[in-house]
Amino acid sequence: MTVKSSNITAVPHRVEREERWRANGHKGGVLWFTGLSGSGKTTLAFELEQKLFAKGYQVYVLDGDNVRHGLSGDLGFSPEDRIENIRRIGEVAALFAEAGYLVISAFISPYRDDRRLARQATDEGFHEVYLSANLATCEGRDAKGLYAKAHAGEIPDFTGVSAPYEAPEQADLEIDTGKLSVDESMALLHDYVAKAFHLSGDG
Amino acid sequence: MTVKSSNITAVPHRVEREERWRANGHKGGVLWFTGLSGSGKTTLAFELEQKLFAKGYQVYVLDGDNVRHGLSGDLGFSPEDRIENIRRIGEVAALFAEAGYLVISAFISPYRDDRRLARQATDEGFHEVYLSANLATCEGRDAKGLYAKAHAGEIPDFTGVSAPYEAPEQADLEIDTGKLSVDESMALLHDYVAKAFHLSGDG
Repeated sequence: MTVKSSNITAVPHRVEREERWRANGHKGGVLWFTGLSGSGKTTLAFELEQKLFAKGYQVYVLDGDNVRHGLSGDLGFSPEDRIENIRRIGEVAALFAEAGYLVISAFISPYRDDRRLARQATDEGFHEVYLSANLATCEGRDAKGLYAKAHAGEIPDFTGVSAPYEAPEQADLEIDTGKLSVDESMALLHDYVAKAFHLSGDG
Repeated sequence: MTVKSSNITAVPHRVEREERWRANGHKGGVLWFTGLSGSGKTTLAFELEQKLFAKGYQVYVLDGDNVRHGLSGDLGFSPEDRIENIRRIGEVAALFAEAGYLVISAFISPYRDDRRLARQATDEGFHEVYLSANLATCEGRDAKGLYAKAHAGEIPDFTGVSAPYEAPEQADLEIDTGKLSVDESMALLHDYVAKAFHLSGDG
Protein backbone atom coordinates (compact mmCIF):
# COMPACT_ATOMS: atom_id res chain seq x y z
CA MET A 1 0.00 0.00 0.00
CA THR A 2 1.31 3.44 -0.86
CA VAL A 3 1.10 6.08 1.82
CA LYS A 4 -0.49 9.12 0.21
CA SER A 5 -0.31 11.33 3.27
CA SER A 6 2.12 14.21 3.15
CA ASN A 7 2.72 17.58 4.82
CA ILE A 8 2.88 15.82 8.18
CA THR A 9 5.51 16.75 10.69
CA ALA A 10 6.39 13.89 12.99
CA VAL A 11 6.04 14.96 16.61
CA PRO A 12 7.34 12.50 19.18
CA HIS A 13 4.96 11.23 21.79
CA ARG A 14 5.86 12.67 25.11
CA VAL A 15 5.06 9.47 26.95
CA GLU A 16 7.35 6.62 25.93
CA ARG A 17 6.11 3.10 25.47
CA GLU A 18 8.34 1.78 28.24
CA GLU A 19 6.93 4.34 30.68
CA ARG A 20 3.46 3.02 29.92
CA TRP A 21 4.66 -0.55 30.45
CA ARG A 22 6.09 0.30 33.84
CA ALA A 23 2.91 2.10 34.88
CA ASN A 24 0.77 -0.88 33.82
CA GLY A 25 3.10 -3.56 35.13
CA HIS A 26 3.18 -5.44 31.84
CA LYS A 27 4.19 -4.95 28.24
CA GLY A 28 1.72 -3.81 25.63
CA GLY A 29 1.14 -5.84 22.51
CA VAL A 30 -1.25 -7.79 20.33
CA LEU A 31 -2.61 -11.29 20.74
CA TRP A 32 -3.89 -11.91 17.24
CA PHE A 33 -6.31 -14.84 17.27
CA THR A 34 -6.92 -16.59 13.97
CA GLY A 35 -9.04 -19.62 13.20
CA LEU A 36 -12.24 -20.79 11.54
CA SER A 37 -15.67 -19.63 12.53
CA GLY A 38 -16.52 -21.76 15.57
CA SER A 39 -12.92 -22.32 16.63
CA GLY A 40 -13.45 -20.44 19.88
CA LYS A 41 -11.95 -17.03 19.14
CA THR A 42 -14.66 -14.93 20.76
CA THR A 43 -15.22 -17.23 23.72
CA LEU A 44 -11.54 -17.41 24.58
CA ALA A 45 -10.98 -13.71 23.90
CA PHE A 46 -13.61 -12.67 26.44
CA GLU A 47 -12.60 -15.30 28.97
CA LEU A 48 -9.01 -14.12 28.71
CA GLU A 49 -10.00 -10.46 28.91
CA GLN A 50 -11.97 -11.17 32.07
CA LYS A 51 -9.15 -13.12 33.68
CA LEU A 52 -6.38 -10.68 32.80
CA PHE A 53 -8.45 -7.66 33.81
CA ALA A 54 -9.01 -9.25 37.21
CA LYS A 55 -5.23 -9.58 37.52
CA GLY A 56 -4.75 -5.88 36.79
CA TYR A 57 -3.89 -5.96 33.09
CA GLN A 58 -4.94 -3.22 30.71
CA VAL A 59 -6.67 -5.50 28.21
CA TYR A 60 -9.23 -5.03 25.47
CA VAL A 61 -10.86 -7.22 22.82
CA LEU A 62 -11.36 -6.10 19.24
CA ASP A 63 -14.04 -8.20 17.58
CA GLY A 64 -16.78 -8.03 14.99
CA ASP A 65 -19.17 -6.49 17.44
CA ASN A 66 -17.18 -3.36 18.18
CA VAL A 67 -15.35 -3.00 14.86
CA ARG A 68 -17.78 -4.08 12.15
CA HIS A 69 -20.52 -1.71 13.27
CA GLY A 70 -18.21 1.27 13.62
CA LEU A 71 -14.75 1.59 12.11
CA SER A 72 -15.54 -0.95 9.35
CA GLY A 73 -19.23 -0.14 9.08
CA ASP A 74 -18.65 0.99 5.49
CA LEU A 75 -17.24 -2.39 4.51
CA GLY A 76 -19.06 -5.54 3.43
CA PHE A 77 -17.78 -9.09 3.09
CA SER A 78 -16.31 -9.07 -0.40
CA PRO A 79 -12.69 -10.29 -0.58
CA GLU A 80 -11.35 -6.74 -0.94
CA ASP A 81 -13.53 -5.41 1.89
CA ARG A 82 -12.34 -8.22 4.17
CA ILE A 83 -8.75 -7.39 3.38
CA GLU A 84 -9.36 -3.73 4.21
CA ASN A 85 -11.21 -4.70 7.38
CA ILE A 86 -8.27 -6.76 8.62
CA ARG A 87 -5.84 -4.02 7.60
CA ARG A 88 -7.68 -1.47 9.71
CA ILE A 89 -7.91 -3.84 12.67
CA GLY A 90 -4.17 -4.44 12.44
CA GLU A 91 -3.55 -0.70 12.55
CA VAL A 92 -5.95 -0.12 15.43
CA ALA A 93 -4.42 -3.01 17.36
CA ALA A 94 -1.02 -1.38 16.81
CA LEU A 95 -2.32 1.89 18.30
CA PHE A 96 -3.65 0.06 21.35
CA ALA A 97 -0.34 -1.74 21.75
CA GLU A 98 1.54 1.56 21.51
CA ALA A 99 -0.79 2.97 24.17
CA GLY A 100 0.26 0.15 26.48
CA TYR A 101 -2.66 -2.21 26.08
CA LEU A 102 -2.67 -5.93 25.68
CA VAL A 103 -5.18 -6.04 22.85
CA ILE A 104 -6.82 -9.27 21.72
CA SER A 105 -8.00 -9.39 18.12
CA ALA A 106 -10.70 -12.00 17.50
CA PHE A 107 -11.27 -12.28 13.76
CA ILE A 108 -11.04 -15.24 11.37
CA SER A 109 -8.39 -13.31 9.38
CA PRO A 110 -8.01 -16.18 6.89
CA TYR A 111 -5.17 -14.84 4.75
CA ARG A 112 -1.48 -15.06 5.58
CA ASP A 113 -0.69 -11.83 3.77
CA ASP A 114 -3.23 -9.92 5.85
CA ARG A 115 -1.88 -11.31 9.08
CA ARG A 116 1.65 -10.46 7.97
CA LEU A 117 0.56 -6.85 7.42
CA ALA A 118 -1.01 -6.77 10.86
CA ARG A 119 2.23 -8.04 12.36
CA GLN A 120 4.16 -5.33 10.53
CA ALA A 121 1.82 -2.61 11.83
CA THR A 122 2.81 -3.54 15.39
CA ASP A 123 6.55 -3.22 15.27
CA GLU A 124 7.08 -5.29 18.39
CA GLY A 125 4.87 -7.45 20.58
CA PHE A 126 2.67 -9.09 17.96
CA HIS A 127 1.71 -12.67 18.81
CA GLU A 128 -0.20 -14.87 16.38
CA VAL A 129 -2.41 -17.37 18.18
CA TYR A 130 -3.83 -20.12 15.98
CA LEU A 131 -6.99 -21.75 17.28
CA SER A 132 -6.72 -24.85 15.16
CA ALA A 133 -10.03 -26.66 15.58
CA ASN A 134 -10.53 -28.26 12.18
CA LEU A 135 -13.36 -27.65 9.77
CA ALA A 136 -15.29 -30.82 10.64
CA THR A 137 -15.30 -29.87 14.31
CA CYS A 138 -16.33 -26.28 13.65
CA GLU A 139 -19.05 -27.34 11.25
CA GLY A 140 -20.26 -29.87 13.78
CA ARG A 141 -20.66 -27.13 16.40
CA ASP A 142 -22.16 -24.45 14.16
CA ALA A 143 -23.56 -22.64 17.18
CA LYS A 144 -24.72 -19.71 15.07
CA GLY A 145 -25.98 -21.79 12.15
CA LEU A 146 -23.58 -20.00 9.82
CA TYR A 147 -22.10 -23.12 8.21
CA ALA A 148 -25.60 -24.35 7.36
CA LYS A 149 -26.37 -20.98 5.77
CA ALA A 150 -23.07 -21.03 3.91
CA HIS A 151 -23.74 -24.50 2.48
CA ALA A 152 -27.21 -23.34 1.48
CA GLY A 153 -25.57 -20.52 -0.44
CA GLU A 154 -27.05 -17.85 1.80
CA ILE A 155 -23.63 -16.53 2.84
CA PRO A 156 -21.13 -16.08 0.01
CA ASP A 157 -17.37 -16.35 0.49
CA PHE A 158 -17.68 -18.17 3.80
CA THR A 159 -14.29 -19.24 5.13
CA GLY A 160 -13.84 -23.01 5.03
CA VAL A 161 -16.88 -23.54 2.79
CA SER A 162 -16.64 -21.19 -0.17
CA ALA A 163 -13.49 -19.23 0.66
CA PRO A 164 -10.09 -20.50 1.74
CA TYR A 165 -8.51 -20.47 5.18
CA GLU A 166 -4.74 -20.22 5.10
CA ALA A 167 -3.47 -21.75 8.32
CA PRO A 168 -0.45 -20.10 9.94
CA GLU A 169 2.82 -21.76 9.00
CA GLN A 170 4.49 -20.81 12.25
CA ALA A 171 2.09 -19.40 14.80
CA ASP A 172 3.53 -18.06 18.04
CA LEU A 173 1.02 -20.25 19.86
CA GLU A 174 -1.24 -22.98 18.53
CA ILE A 175 -4.15 -24.31 20.52
CA ASP A 176 -6.17 -27.23 19.19
CA THR A 177 -9.54 -25.99 20.31
CA GLY A 178 -11.12 -29.00 18.67
CA LYS A 179 -9.56 -31.25 21.32
CA LEU A 180 -8.88 -29.02 24.32
CA SER A 181 -11.56 -27.67 26.61
CA VAL A 182 -12.04 -23.98 27.25
CA ASP A 183 -10.29 -24.34 30.60
CA GLU A 184 -7.34 -26.19 29.06
CA SER A 185 -7.09 -23.63 26.30
CA MET A 186 -7.25 -20.82 28.84
CA ALA A 187 -4.39 -22.33 30.82
CA LEU A 188 -2.19 -22.32 27.71
CA LEU A 189 -3.15 -18.75 26.89
CA HIS A 190 -2.55 -17.57 30.40
CA ASP A 191 0.89 -19.18 30.57
CA TYR A 192 1.79 -17.66 27.24
CA VAL A 193 0.71 -14.16 28.29
CA ALA A 194 2.51 -14.39 31.61
CA LYS A 195 5.76 -14.95 29.74
CA ALA A 196 5.28 -12.86 26.61
CA PHE A 197 3.99 -9.72 28.34
CA HIS A 198 6.18 -9.98 31.40
CA LEU A 199 8.20 -6.86 32.12
CA SER A 200 11.82 -7.82 32.39
CA GLY A 201 13.44 -6.55 35.53
CA ASP A 202 10.29 -6.56 37.63
CA GLY A 203 11.04 -9.85 39.33
CA MET B 1 -23.69 5.84 6.31
CA THR B 2 -25.34 2.48 5.84
CA VAL B 3 -23.94 -0.41 7.82
CA LYS B 4 -23.40 -3.21 5.34
CA SER B 5 -22.11 -5.72 7.83
CA SER B 6 -24.37 -8.64 8.63
CA ASN B 7 -24.17 -12.16 10.05
CA ILE B 8 -22.67 -10.76 13.21
CA THR B 9 -23.79 -11.99 16.58
CA ALA B 10 -23.40 -9.38 19.28
CA VAL B 11 -21.44 -10.80 22.19
CA PRO B 12 -21.30 -8.64 25.29
CA HIS B 13 -17.93 -7.61 26.56
CA ARG B 14 -17.18 -9.41 29.77
CA VAL B 15 -15.52 -6.38 31.31
CA GLU B 16 -17.95 -3.50 31.80
CA ARG B 17 -16.96 0.07 31.16
CA GLU B 18 -17.58 1.05 34.78
CA GLU B 19 -15.24 -1.70 35.97
CA ARG B 20 -12.52 -0.22 33.80
CA TRP B 21 -13.22 3.25 35.19
CA ARG B 22 -12.88 2.02 38.74
CA ALA B 23 -9.65 0.20 37.96
CA ASN B 24 -8.19 3.32 36.33
CA GLY B 25 -9.54 5.80 38.85
CA HIS B 26 -11.13 8.00 36.19
CA LYS B 27 -13.75 7.85 33.48
CA GLY B 28 -12.86 7.02 29.91
CA GLY B 29 -13.77 9.38 27.12
CA VAL B 30 -12.64 11.60 24.29
CA LEU B 31 -11.15 15.08 24.34
CA TRP B 32 -11.70 16.11 20.76
CA PHE B 33 -9.45 19.06 19.93
CA THR B 34 -10.44 21.15 16.93
CA GLY B 35 -8.88 24.30 15.54
CA LEU B 36 -6.83 25.70 12.71
CA SER B 37 -3.36 24.54 11.81
CA GLY B 38 -1.11 26.36 14.27
CA SER B 39 -3.75 26.73 16.96
CA GLY B 40 -1.79 24.55 19.36
CA LYS B 41 -3.56 21.20 19.10
CA THR B 42 -0.46 19.02 18.99
CA THR B 43 1.51 21.02 21.54
CA LEU B 44 -1.33 21.02 24.07
CA ALA B 45 -2.24 17.40 23.38
CA PHE B 46 1.25 16.16 24.23
CA GLU B 47 1.63 18.50 27.19
CA LEU B 48 -1.68 17.27 28.55
CA GLU B 49 -0.80 13.64 27.89
CA GLN B 50 2.44 14.07 29.78
CA LYS B 51 0.79 15.77 32.73
CA LEU B 52 -2.14 13.37 33.02
CA PHE B 53 0.09 10.32 32.62
CA ALA B 54 2.22 11.57 35.49
CA LYS B 55 -0.94 11.76 37.58
CA GLY B 56 -1.79 8.14 36.81
CA TYR B 57 -4.29 8.57 33.99
CA GLN B 58 -4.59 6.13 31.13
CA VAL B 59 -4.20 8.70 28.36
CA TYR B 60 -3.25 8.56 24.70
CA VAL B 61 -3.03 11.04 21.83
CA LEU B 62 -4.32 10.30 18.35
CA ASP B 63 -2.71 12.62 15.84
CA GLY B 64 -1.55 12.80 12.27
CA ASP B 65 1.69 11.10 13.09
CA ASN B 66 0.23 7.85 14.37
CA VAL B 67 -2.97 7.79 12.30
CA ARG B 68 -2.10 9.18 8.89
CA HIS B 69 0.80 6.79 8.33
CA GLY B 70 -1.16 3.72 9.43
CA LEU B 71 -4.93 3.49 9.70
CA SER B 72 -5.49 6.30 7.19
CA GLY B 73 -2.38 5.63 5.12
CA ASP B 74 -4.62 4.84 2.14
CA LEU B 75 -6.24 8.28 2.30
CA GLY B 76 -5.07 11.56 0.85
CA PHE B 77 -6.25 15.10 1.51
CA SER B 78 -9.21 15.40 -0.85
CA PRO B 79 -12.45 16.53 0.82
CA GLU B 80 -13.88 13.00 0.79
CA ASP B 81 -10.67 11.45 2.09
CA ARG B 82 -10.55 13.98 4.91
CA ILE B 83 -14.11 13.15 5.87
CA GLU B 84 -13.28 9.44 5.92
CA ASN B 85 -10.12 10.12 7.92
CA ILE B 86 -12.06 11.97 10.61
CA ARG B 87 -14.76 9.28 10.60
CA ARG B 88 -12.17 6.58 11.30
CA ILE B 89 -10.52 8.64 14.01
CA GLY B 90 -13.89 9.17 15.65
CA GLU B 91 -14.50 5.42 15.66
CA VAL B 92 -11.03 4.61 16.98
CA ALA B 93 -11.39 7.25 19.69
CA ALA B 94 -14.69 5.59 20.66
CA LEU B 95 -12.91 2.23 21.00
CA PHE B 96 -10.24 3.76 23.23
CA ALA B 97 -12.92 5.42 25.34
CA GLU B 98 -14.78 2.14 25.68
CA ALA B 99 -11.51 0.52 26.74
CA GLY B 100 -11.26 3.05 29.57
CA TYR B 101 -8.81 5.51 28.07
CA LEU B 102 -8.90 9.26 28.09
CA VAL B 103 -8.04 9.73 24.44
CA ILE B 104 -7.05 13.09 23.00
CA SER B 105 -7.73 13.60 19.31
CA ALA B 106 -5.57 16.33 17.74
CA PHE B 107 -6.85 17.00 14.23
CA ILE B 108 -8.09 20.18 12.55
CA SER B 109 -11.43 18.40 11.87
CA PRO B 110 -12.87 21.50 10.17
CA TYR B 111 -16.44 20.31 9.52
CA ARG B 112 -19.29 20.36 12.03
CA ASP B 113 -20.92 17.31 10.50
CA ASP B 114 -17.75 15.27 10.90
CA ARG B 115 -17.36 16.29 14.52
CA ARG B 116 -21.01 15.46 15.15
CA LEU B 117 -20.40 11.96 13.76
CA ALA B 118 -17.38 11.56 16.01
CA ARG B 119 -19.48 12.59 18.99
CA GLN B 120 -22.12 10.03 18.06
CA ALA B 121 -19.53 7.25 17.79
CA THR B 122 -18.68 7.79 21.47
CA ASP B 123 -22.04 7.41 23.12
CA GLU B 124 -20.95 9.13 26.30
CA GLY B 125 -17.93 11.10 27.39
CA PHE B 126 -17.19 13.05 24.21
CA HIS B 127 -15.84 16.55 24.86
CA GLU B 128 -15.26 19.02 22.06
CA VAL B 129 -12.39 21.38 22.82
CA TYR B 130 -12.12 24.37 20.51
CA LEU B 131 -8.68 25.95 20.29
CA SER B 132 -9.83 29.24 18.89
CA ALA B 133 -6.67 31.09 17.86
CA ASN B 134 -7.80 33.03 14.82
CA LEU B 135 -6.48 32.74 11.30
CA ALA B 136 -4.29 35.85 11.46
CA THR B 137 -2.57 34.53 14.56
CA CYS B 138 -2.07 31.05 13.13
CA GLU B 139 -0.79 32.43 9.84
CA GLY B 140 1.53 34.71 11.74
CA ARG B 141 3.06 31.76 13.57
CA ASP B 142 3.25 29.34 10.62
CA ALA B 143 5.89 27.29 12.41
CA LYS B 144 5.79 24.60 9.74
CA GLY B 145 5.56 26.98 6.79
CA LEU B 146 2.29 25.38 5.73
CA TYR B 147 0.32 28.61 5.33
CA ALA B 148 3.01 30.00 3.06
CA LYS B 149 2.85 26.84 0.97
CA ALA B 150 -0.94 26.99 0.91
CA HIS B 151 -0.91 30.59 -0.31
CA ALA B 152 1.63 29.64 -2.96
CA GLY B 153 -0.79 26.99 -4.16
CA GLU B 154 1.50 24.14 -3.15
CA ILE B 155 -1.05 22.64 -0.75
CA PRO B 156 -4.61 22.42 -2.07
CA ASP B 157 -7.69 22.57 0.15
CA PHE B 158 -5.80 24.03 3.09
CA THR B 159 -8.11 24.88 5.97
CA GLY B 160 -8.45 28.61 6.47
CA VAL B 161 -6.83 29.44 3.13
CA SER B 162 -8.51 27.43 0.41
CA ALA B 163 -10.93 25.30 2.44
CA PRO B 164 -13.39 26.37 5.14
CA TYR B 165 -13.14 25.96 8.88
CA GLU B 166 -16.50 25.61 10.58
CA ALA B 167 -16.05 26.78 14.15
CA PRO B 168 -17.97 24.88 16.84
CA GLU B 169 -21.26 26.55 17.75
CA GLN B 170 -21.18 25.25 21.28
CA ALA B 171 -17.90 23.63 22.22
CA ASP B 172 -17.66 21.94 25.60
CA LEU B 173 -14.54 23.99 26.22
CA GLU B 174 -13.11 26.90 24.24
CA ILE B 175 -9.56 28.11 24.74
CA ASP B 176 -8.35 31.18 22.92
CA THR B 177 -4.88 29.92 22.18
CA GLY B 178 -4.19 33.12 20.29
CA LYS B 179 -4.25 35.03 23.57
CA LEU B 180 -3.48 32.52 26.29
CA SER B 181 -0.06 31.01 26.87
CA VAL B 182 0.56 27.28 26.83
CA ASP B 183 0.62 27.26 30.64
CA GLU B 184 -2.65 29.18 30.88
CA SER B 185 -4.25 26.91 28.34
CA MET B 186 -2.97 23.85 30.19
CA ALA B 187 -4.52 25.10 33.43
CA LEU B 188 -7.93 25.35 31.75
CA LEU B 189 -7.56 21.90 30.23
CA HIS B 190 -6.46 20.36 33.48
CA ASP B 191 -9.38 21.85 35.41
CA TYR B 192 -11.80 20.65 32.77
CA VAL B 193 -10.42 17.10 32.81
CA ALA B 194 -10.43 16.94 36.60
CA LYS B 195 -14.17 17.60 36.57
CA ALA B 196 -15.28 15.85 33.39
CA PHE B 197 -13.40 12.59 33.98
CA HIS B 198 -13.87 12.48 37.72
CA LEU B 199 -15.38 9.25 38.98
CA SER B 200 -18.42 10.08 41.05
CA GLY B 201 -18.34 8.46 44.44
CA ASP B 202 -14.58 8.32 44.71
CA GLY B 203 -14.34 11.39 46.94
